[in-house]
Amino acid sequence: MRALLCNNGLRYDSAYPNPEPPPGEALIRVRLAGICNTDLELVRGYLNFRGVLGHEFVGEVVQAADATLIGQRVVGDINAACRSQACAACTAGRPTHCPNRTTLGIAGRDGAFADYLILPQANLYAVPENISDEMAVFTEPLAAACEILAQIRIAPTDRVVVLGDGKLGLLVAAVLRLTGADLTLVGRNRSKLAIAEGWGVQVRLAGDPLPARAADVVVECTGSPQGFESARRLLRPRGALVLKSTYHGALSVDMSGLVVDEITLLGSRCGPFAPALRLLSSGLVDPRGLISETFALDQAADAFARAAAPGVLKVLLAP
Amino acid sequence: MRALLCNNGLRYDSAYPNPEPPPGEALIRVRLAGICNTDLELVRGYLNFRGVLGHEFVGEVVQAADATLIGQRVVGDINAACRSQACAACTAGRPTHCPNRTTLGIAGRDGAFADYLILPQANLYAVPENISDEMAVFTEPLAAACEILAQIRIAPTDRVVVLGDGKLGLLVAAVLRLTGADLTLVGRNRSKLAIAEGWGVQVRLAGDPLPARAADVVVECTGSPQGFESARRLLRPRGALVLKSTYHGALSVDMSGLVVDEITLLGSRCGPFAPALRLLSSGLVDPRGLISETFALDQAADAFARAAAPGVLKVLLAP
Repeated sequence: MRALLCNNGLRYDSAYPNPEPPPGEALIRVRLAGICNTDLELVRGYLNFRGVLGHEFVGEVVQAADATLIGQRVVGDINAACRSQACAACTAGRPTHCPNRTTLGIAGRDGAFADYLILPQANLYAVPENISDEMAVFTEPLAAACEILAQIRIAPTDRVVVLGDGKLGLLVAAVLRLTGADLTLVGRNRSKLAIAEGWGVQVRLAGDPLPARAADVVVECTGSPQGFESARRLLRPRGALVLKSTYHGALSVDMSGLVVDEITLLGSRCGPFAPALRLLSSGLVDPRGLISETFALDQAADAFARAAAPGVLKVLLAP
Repeated sequence: MRALLCNNGLRYDSAYPNPEPPPGEALIRVRLAGICNTDLELVRGYLNFRGVLGHEFVGEVVQAADATLIGQRVVGDINAACRSQACAACTAGRPTHCPNRTTLGIAGRDGAFADYLILPQANLYAVPENISDEMAVFTEPLAAACEILAQIRIAPTDRVVVLGDGKLGLLVAAVLRLTGADLTLVGRNRSKLAIAEGWGVQVRLAGDPLPARAADVVVECTGSPQGFESARRLLRPRGALVLKSTYHGALSVDMSGLVVDEITLLGSRCGPFAPALRLLSSGLVDPRGLISETFALDQAADAFARAAAPGVLKVLLAP
């Protein structure tokens, strides 16, 4: 099959071996896949991943022990847990934190930028008919945005600031606006901010004044030390600072300030697929405005260059 | 009056002016006061405080507009908030985070190492008769330990590790053992650990092996970068790391690790006095084993030297 490999940079292979599902896993033909910032980082060497890239996808089950799955259009949780009765994380209901997990296109498991992928049947979610492929391919990052509300309560009376108008920042804003909170998205790109403005979200250019120490919740989606500093400046004492982005290297943090202000710092990663699909199916979140361009799989180099260009949001790959 | 001043180091003054309570504040004769690590840090220059030191005390009200207070034995919340209707923190029920607050013996307000102090009447809590002065003087740090349970839920099924066998670590262990959780206190001093062992708390010497990534909650009471690193190593994914100690300078933190493991980092400072008094009155917490020695006020230099010595826990000052 055709596949896009991460192996000291990006490499397209037109004759990569088809994956063969082990017991409990399904073979899925990829219909559409999305490039995430994590993919760009993996190509630069993050996590030393070697294999087929890609973890955002919608596909069709072509082989599975569970015959009811065959022919279904599905999305899939990217964390394949061991689900062993001896695993504390799995038995406690935290499979995305299973220490023995592999992660689609990120760690120990080939990903979605290919004709086919395999995932455990238990990871798959049928996509309702009214969700197009162009919407369904956003399920994984939208689930990551939903994870925030799985972790903390945001009240409709809260003042919330999202920092970063990239793909994730926009999806976070799309989800958090549903709380009815007083939400502001801060970014550097007027056209990206305009998308959130179209959803009725208040937007501000980075550098525009915002009230200091007034936000109940700040969600950091820039992944930059400056973003963390802005978040601390905007957050009120006893507020929650949600970290949605990974950072390069270590960050120097004033821990005494966190203690004195009793800040809650909350790391947030992968999220629940079922609510993400509900939000797409109901139309409460429509991420299609985030699609910048769709490329064929063999145009991978162009697709990745485009995905890394300023002002670009989601770049899709259609096998 | 006699007073112990922080002014480029420690200075004893036998003729410091008596405080005069403004409207709404009470004059309190100090019966007993305790030296906290924060006092030692203030003497070293922390927060650039100038004035009478001391924030842990029990005293007797000798002057107050509210006549029912006069003669009462009291302890007092050290944060004097502005309580203005225009203050977001005060009106939202977060007076300990009032941006206009002064703090007894720490910031903008003379403290308890003196014959008299003043505090707002609203800050005072009557001490039940069955709580001796030696116990009541622990109300403030015990409230700080209670703050953890005001911020997060600890389930009786949780595995909890407290790092640091200093005064605060011991009081935190004394409170958290009441949850029924599987609690372990880690420290460097066998005699301090023995106090917690006497309460039925499991103890370990720092460096003894403990299971990695297995604790649901770790409370960091060492204030050292090594303590933070140990806490991260012991904490399971999605666990809570409570920071009870202030740190000198900035700490270098692997933020991506916090995101990937979805850690909750929680700064924790001053706490509620009413539950602390209930725990003392009921005998559920008896901190008297932590008293190392009591000094007269004019022996301040000796008292502070003793408080800073290894192996020493609480040093009291009796005016």
